[in-house]
Amino acid sequence: MKTKEFYSMPEKTNENSLLASAQASLDKAARMLNLDPNIYAMLKTNERTLTVSLPVEMDDGHVEVFTGYRVQHTTARGPGKGGIRYHPAVTQEEVAALAQLMTWKCSLVNVPFSGAKGGVSVNPRQLSENELRRLTRRYTYAISPIIGPKTDIPAPDMNTDEKTMTWITDTYSMIKGESSGEIVTGKPVSLGGSVGRINATGLGVAIAAEQALLRNGCELNKCTAVVQGFGNVGTWSARHIADRGLKIVGISDISGGYYNPKGLNVDEMVTYVKQSDTRSLEGYSAPGVESINNEELLSLPCDVLVPAAMENQIRSDNANK
Amino acid sequence: MKTKEFYSMPEKTNENSLLASAQASLDKAARMLNLDPNIYAMLKTNERTLTVSLPVEMDDGHVEVFTGYRVQHTTARGPGKGGIRYHPAVTQEEVAALAQLMTWKCSLVNVPFSGAKGGVSVNPRQLSENELRRLTRRYTYAISPIIGPKTDIPAPDMNTDEKTMTWITDTYSMIKGESSGEIVTGKPVSLGGSVGRINATGLGVAIAAEQALLRNGCELNKCTAVVQGFGNVGTWSARHIADRGLKIVGISDISGGYYNPKGLNVDEMVTYVKQSDTRSLEGYSAPGVESINNEELLSLPCDVLVPAAMENQIRSDNANK
Amino acid sequence: MKTKEFYSMPEKTNENSLLASAQASLDKAARMLNLDPNIYAMLKTNERTLTVSLPVEMDDGHVEVFTGYRVQHTTARGPGKGGIRYHPAVTQEEVAALAQLMTWKCSLVNVPFSGAKGGVSVNPRQLSENELRRLTRRYTYAISPIIGPKTDIPAPDMNTDEKTMTWITDTYSMIKGESSGEIVTGKPVSLGGSVGRINATGLGVAIAAEQALLRNGCELNKCTAVVQGFGNVGTWSARHIADRGLKIVGISDISGGYYNPKGLNVDEMVTYVKQSDTRSLEGYSAPGVESINNEELLSLPCDVLVPAAMENQIRSDNANK
Amino acid sequence: MKTKEFYSMPEKTNENSLLASAQASLDKAARMLNLDPNIYAMLKTNERTLTVSLPVEMDDGHVEVFTGYRVQHTTARGPGKGGIRYHPAVTQEEVAALAQLMTWKCSLVNVPFSGAKGGVSVNPRQLSENELRRLTRRYTYAISPIIGPKTDIPAPDMNTDEKTMTWITDTYSMIKGESSGEIVTGKPVSLGGSVGRINATGLGVAIAAEQALLRNGCELNKCTAVVQGFGNVGTWSARHIADRGLKIVGISDISGGYYNPKGLNVDEMVTYVKQSDTRSLEGYSAPGVESINNEELLSLPCDVLVPAAMENQIRSDNANK
Amino acid sequence: MKTKEFYSMPEKTNENSLLASAQASLDKAARMLNLDPNIYAMLKTNERTLTVSLPVEMDDGHVEVFTGYRVQHTTARGPGKGGIRYHPAVTQEEVAALAQLMTWKCSLVNVPFSGAKGGVSVNPRQLSENELRRLTRRYTYAISPIIGPKTDIPAPDMNTDEKTMTWITDTYSMIKGESSGEIVTGKPVSLGGSVGRINATGLGVAIAAEQALLRNGCELNKCTAVVQGFGNVGTWSARHIADRGLKIVGISDISGGYYNPKGLNVDEMVTYVKQSDTRSLEGYSAPGVESINNEELLSLPCDVLVPAAMENQIRSDNANK
Amino acid sequence: MKTKEFYSMPEKTNENSLLASAQASLDKAARMLNLDPNIYAMLKTNERTLTVSLPVEMDDGHVEVFTGYRVQHTTARGPGKGGIRYHPAVTQEEVAALAQLMTWKCSLVNVPFSGAKGGVSVNPRQLSENELRRLTRRYTYAISPIIGPKTDIPAPDMNTDEKTMTWITDTYSMIKGESSGEIVTGKPVSLGGSVGRINATGLGVAIAAEQALLRNGCELNKCTAVVQGFGNVGTWSARHIADRGLKIVGISDISGGYYNPKGLNVDEMVTYVKQSDTRSLEGYSAPGVESINNEELLSLPCDVLVPAAMENQIRSDNANK
Repeated sequence: MKTKEFYSMPEKTNENSLLASAQASLDKAARMLNLDPNIYAMLKTNERTLTVSLPVEMDDGHVEVFTGYRVQHTTARGPGKGGIRYHPAVTQEEVAALAQLMTWKCSLVNVPFSGAKGGVSVNPRQLSENELRRLTRRYTYAISPIIGPKTDIPAPDMNTDEKTMTWITDTYSMIKGESSGEIVTGKPVSLGGSVGRINATGLGVAIAAEQALLRNGCELNKCTAVVQGFGNVGTWSARHIADRGLKIVGISDISGGYYNPKGLNVDEMVTYVKQSDTRSLEGYSAPGVESINNEELLSLPCDVLVPAAMENQIRSDNANK
Repeated sequence: MKTKEFYSMPEKTNENSLLASAQASLDKAARMLNLDPNIYAMLKTNERTLTVSLPVEMDDGHVEVFTGYRVQHTTARGPGKGGIRYHPAVTQEEVAALAQLMTWKCSLVNVPFSGAKGGVSVNPRQLSENELRRLTRRYTYAISPIIGPKTDIPAPDMNTDEKTMTWITDTYSMIKGESSGEIVTGKPVSLGGSVGRINATGLGVAIAAEQALLRNGCELNKCTAVVQGFGNVGTWSARHIADRGLKIVGISDISGGYYNPKGLNVDEMVTYVKQSDTRSLEGYSAPGVESINNEELLSLPCDVLVPAAMENQIRSDNANK
Repeated sequence: MKTKEFYSMPEKTNENSLLASAQASLDKAARMLNLDPNIYAMLKTNERTLTVSLPVEMDDGHVEVFTGYRVQHTTARGPGKGGIRYHPAVTQEEVAALAQLMTWKCSLVNVPFSGAKGGVSVNPRQLSENELRRLTRRYTYAISPIIGPKTDIPAPDMNTDEKTMTWITDTYSMIKGESSGEIVTGKPVSLGGSVGRINATGLGVAIAAEQALLRNGCELNKCTAVVQGFGNVGTWSARHIADRGLKIVGISDISGGYYNPKGLNVDEMVTYVKQSDTRSLEGYSAPGVESINNEELLSLPCDVLVPAAMENQIRSDNANK
Repeated sequence: MKTKEFYSMPEKTNENSLLASAQASLDKAARMLNLDPNIYAMLKTNERTLTVSLPVEMDDGHVEVFTGYRVQHTTARGPGKGGIRYHPAVTQEEVAALAQLMTWKCSLVNVPFSGAKGGVSVNPRQLSENELRRLTRRYTYAISPIIGPKTDIPAPDMNTDEKTMTWITDTYSMIKGESSGEIVTGKPVSLGGSVGRINATGLGVAIAAEQALLRNGCELNKCTAVVQGFGNVGTWSARHIADRGLKIVGISDISGGYYNPKGLNVDEMVTYVKQSDTRSLEGYSAPGVESINNEELLSLPCDVLVPAAMENQIRSDNANK
Repeated sequence: MKTKEFYSMPEKTNENSLLASAQASLDKAARMLNLDPNIYAMLKTNERTLTVSLPVEMDDGHVEVFTGYRVQHTTARGPGKGGIRYHPAVTQEEVAALAQLMTWKCSLVNVPFSGAKGGVSVNPRQLSENELRRLTRRYTYAISPIIGPKTDIPAPDMNTDEKTMTWITDTYSMIKGESSGEIVTGKPVSLGGSVGRINATGLGVAIAAEQALLRNGCELNKCTAVVQGFGNVGTWSARHIADRGLKIVGISDISGGYYNPKGLNVDEMVTYVKQSDTRSLEGYSAPGVESINNEELLSLPCDVLVPAAMENQIRSDNANK
Repeated sequence: MKTKEFYSMPEKTNENSLLASAQASLDKAARMLNLDPNIYAMLKTNERTLTVSLPVEMDDGHVEVFTGYRVQHTTARGPGKGGIRYHPAVTQEEVAALAQLMTWKCSLVNVPFSGAKGGVSVNPRQLSENELRRLTRRYTYAISPIIGPKTDIPAPDMNTDEKTMTWITDTYSMIKGESSGEIVTGKPVSLGGSVGRINATGLGVAIAAEQALLRNGCELNKCTAVVQGFGNVGTWSARHIADRGLKIVGISDISGGYYNPKGLNVDEMVTYVKQSDTRSLEGYSAPGVESINNEELLSLPCDVLVPAAMENQIRSDNANK
């Protein structure tokens, strides 16, 4: 199906390497721009990569040592900007790739920030809240020499949220001895965070999809959408797309895919997840809803496919399905 | 030959991995000490690893981007301490291994410093002095957030020397806006460096060899020595060992090995290198001196073998020769 | 009269203790909110209390040592915020109580500041302007380690004004070596102060009174008001209340009370004070104006009673009069 | 011609001394204001004058040492503000005079800044771009202890521009270790500079001339103007004045004066300069355009004379012509 | 007994007030020195008193809020110097008194430090080691704006020791981002502490006692001593006094007094305490040892009485016994 | 007389210009050393010259504005080092010359400092102690951005002494918020100053004179000396020279010269000055002592002439007398 390609990423040979993909995009752009080789040489590397080991006292008293990263791709456009990801698959290479992508994102919307990214290799579902708090405070301390309101400003990303940003703010403020709310974006509104931040990404996805369809002459209420992933981005994308009149025919999360050609009830599914022990759609059922697997979901006929899970889900081997 | 083993490192399977070797040493020591698992977990990782990209304007005007590292193994014993190496084979892993080894070195001689190490992946022989200066100043700027007299204090290592330390001192002093000679050791004596620093490592090697031989009941003037490598450590080791009465029967450097069972003239060879265009022993000849290759050199019969080239020259596959 | 109670503070047994009163309010609120005991434990103490001794060279050359305070109740909501009071009755306990009240004030109007307060135990009427300047500069120096634009921001309070804030700004700027106008609010407009700041408190009192009366179905031009205190807050409250049509029947200051059931001429009284040597209403008389004492004033029949003198004037023993 | 005097400076005896002129203006103002002698004593001196020597490696490898200045007239109104001039005639005295004038300028338009100025005694036309860059970076480093976003904020002036400001920003940001775009005004818009900054001075000149003529009852399209100097200020003044309907009858630059009583084509002349090797009007000719010298230009009959070259062009000896 | 008075403090009326006692000493000294009243006015107050509330997460998860203090009597002689005491009886007044006494102590031995003192009102025997660690880290954070190697340097005092100093050093070093061992004295020798620090106070007591006796013509091995208190100071005083030949006839601690006219075995008693669950002499018995109470102990006939418990044990009401 | 030339400075044409003299010395040395022109270009300028205006409140309440200087010749050898001079003849040029001379002085004795110097153009005899204190504190504040223990360390010079250094230390310490005794040398011993500092210069003069005479084969007790100037350097030079057996035949100060071919009584003359109202030798007489003027004094026959007044007293026009 053709419309899927609107949001797909460029082909690459090694489907596991986000960095290779990012580099390939840069190469392609550099060729098209006839970019100064000196500038190109600087853009294809990351200016600063900090890797830290994070000893954390676990609830049972033993010390677990995690590995964390903070990468700044460049400082040319202003302070670094980019989220912090907690995920077992986080590696130095992945964080490096994401930092580069942040430079292009900031440039596209012309905000005075440079690309940066952080992450900790950890499965946050296996840690208690107190352990997560201690991990976050230690990580903040460890990267504190290279972050700052005028240096590099973290934000939430996969598995980090307002609470994580509050812990970072508090730790950084204690180190600096002053109230430093400007060290992160994505704080709670009550602590100075921006109104509308939580659903911003999903809203952006919906607006982009809406514009793409309209420019292709589609009628929104005759279109269908499939959303892969049902975390923050996925749920808000689904809601805002549904608000625009599209029928959401497929949604997936860690528990599998859910398909209803007559349209899924997004609000009901959001409520289901909130009340679920597993914080997932596991066990969700409703009249007309059929369980499918992730591969089937990605191949569903639809006008809009929203890849809101991890990066690199749409690849050369499945892009044309 | 048995005496070679005095200075050899423990066996390991992958001869290219200094890090694996360092980790194996730690593991062995931890088992012997019955070390607290929490302490062990912290010691087996590096607290902070900073990787930086270093754009340098070359003499012909184009920009070359090098990669540099600074690794701090721990901060438990005081500020970090460790040299900066310029070598094409420098990698993040190698620097990490060397940083760990510095912790053990500082602990053994009980100075209040923790282990650290730095390096740049560059072949300094291919750069002009001006290019080396610009590279060093950029590297210093790039790692400046994590070094400091009370944080981490660099020193010379392979292919870096007093001049490099002067450039680092000047760059760091300009960033801080004050005279900061204490940012490095290994400065020129005229800028506050320590007297005797240049030959200190070689002198230490000679003293250790002397003591080992004496404790084994050897007569020094009946002993022979082979020195692999003829840089700062190799030349001074050879000189101080010869001063103690031993016969230096073999010396090697990048140009190959030189063997004279009646004893080489160390001072003459030092002078030869100084006057040579290649800054090596290439083309050196003298009565009784025979050219051999590096493998032959390492297998020469001798009472003392000084491995003063790169790390990991004596391995399980050649240790018993 | 019932309407007095709109502005009265809660009953307490020890009429001299503002701190006890503040604590009682917190206790009551905590019970109503079923507040987390851990949060309550933190809120009932002051995070930081700095007491400083202030040697000041007096005009005759001898040194007088005053005692100053700066209290930060919490830093949870952002930088501390609160005035600096010069009064002989200032004590550590009083400043502590006022700091706590500032937290509730900042929270009620939802500005991102936490409660703080400062004070010096001094009778400013006994000091020359030069002595006051030297006292203020010394006090600023003494508390400078814990104040700052992102830490704690002073403001005028009883017996301090724009001039005091200018001295604080200049002293703080000299210590920091940079223009730091943001260290205080309440600066002169010409130095970056906010327009409308001087009459802001009085205007707020008038608006609150107006709204309370209107919500109780009163006609403003049939209502009467009594204003206790005729400093910055009292004069502007009286003016703005009179502007809204109410009749000001009683006003008091340090010289006693002035009563006119047909309404006092507020502007005339303001002018009188400005031209008076004692900077008070002492000696003021006008047709129909009767002298009364403070107790009589507080018992005057009226619809609005503005307690614009010191805290704790309306207590369990006189609240019902 | 009378209208020339609108923009002329006060008479003074020594035509070479801008400082004497500035001091005379202050004296005159002080007398009219009956200024407090203590304030006057402070205003007639410069608070801080920093003179630095600037060793710069030239393209041929030798070191040239230039002299630079940064003068802060006062800090009373906020951070210093003033341009940086590159010109062979720059002296400590001239920079001092210009710093004082900046205080009056900032005060007149009531922005919270104090007067400052900087300069380097250098003929920038004799330096390559790389040499200018190295000079600017060294100058920035040398004055960095006394400039800053809250201390003193440079800007472009004669022979410095957006590129110079970018070098200053980058150098200052590297010293501070953070993105410090606020260290200068006059940056490129893409790095956070203000839109409209480039033509702001010329636009101001045109608006002032327009208002002066209108208030004197003139019809704009019957008026003539002469512009001395054709750099940034001169070209934009000429353009904006021409836009208002005036006829530009004379323009001069380093190559001499150009006169056309029927009006010069400003846009054509701007284009000519851009394409010229000498970056001047040298060799410019057009029908009706007559070459004159600078003295003749200053004596041309006109309603508006714009002195947009160096200071002190209109003096007691030529003001009445 | 006369010799007791060597170490007694001056008479005062309120036996509970150490501050009154300290002030009385100052008054007396000032009268004797005919001290400049301006200096006296400054010396009789404490320059800076910081009171902090310390929320600590207890092992059971609830938050306990403790109160801590740091007082700097003066900064005239150099950085502040003084211990940190953990005791339930710690008050702002007591810490203030101890800070003043530190000024006199530093002056007497002419070290370039001024008097300071700190304390937390807590019974450390009721806290686990983890709770004590969290308390100490929070206390260090809270006082960090006013301590520092060049500002004020803490040390151990009652109930704080090498471990406490290590926690303070680590917390302060993390806040500052550098190894700051110089923030405290009394660190473990392995972290840079001074050799001989642990028994220094006791050794000083023994030397002072020895000198006092010798100057009074006593023979040491015919003298007897009584030691009140058996903590760090008491045990080392007893040991060093016994080493000098005196007979220790009485020792007391929290469990009561122990009397043996033939001499107590100090080493045996030290060992007993180390192995005791209560870390006291409770239950100690030996041939010839008699249990007495504290009052009896203070009235024992002896040549030397060492008051090594809390301050103010020897008062006007018991000094002559 | 020949021996005078030991201490004389090189010839120069303009006897008023110390800077020309210093530059000439550098030129001569550079020629002799065949100095690298790039190094020479840097050494012949002063790296940093700060000129500050110093508003001071005089005892009668009016503000006097003084001009102060701090010049750093270079930073190549370490922090700047040089005295602060209070004298009406102080100019930017003179301070610049003295700063250069300090570089050579520090180099000659091989201490790790660079040359610097400061001064205020003021006649300190016309100021009260309070006015001097306020001047010194303002001067310290004004130069504080460029001085520091690792940047530039002032010391006493003409008309400044231990008291001045104490004021500087206190002002600098207050700005930095910490005890910064290392900001100056020449403090009182009680505040950490060096023992022997007061008479160090004079002692050095005496030792140098002694060695010069001995190397010329003279017998010390047959030699005579003349001392021009009787301030700190002059009195201590005279004392230490007399201690070595020489006869002091001439001494001068502001009041004129005193000559006794049989030798002057130095101690008596020192005592005379201390007890004199004019703090000079004015009115001094003793048997055999003859009054002469300064020119006569400089022409007295002697073996050693000590020029301990201002610089440039021995010139081409009087050197041979």
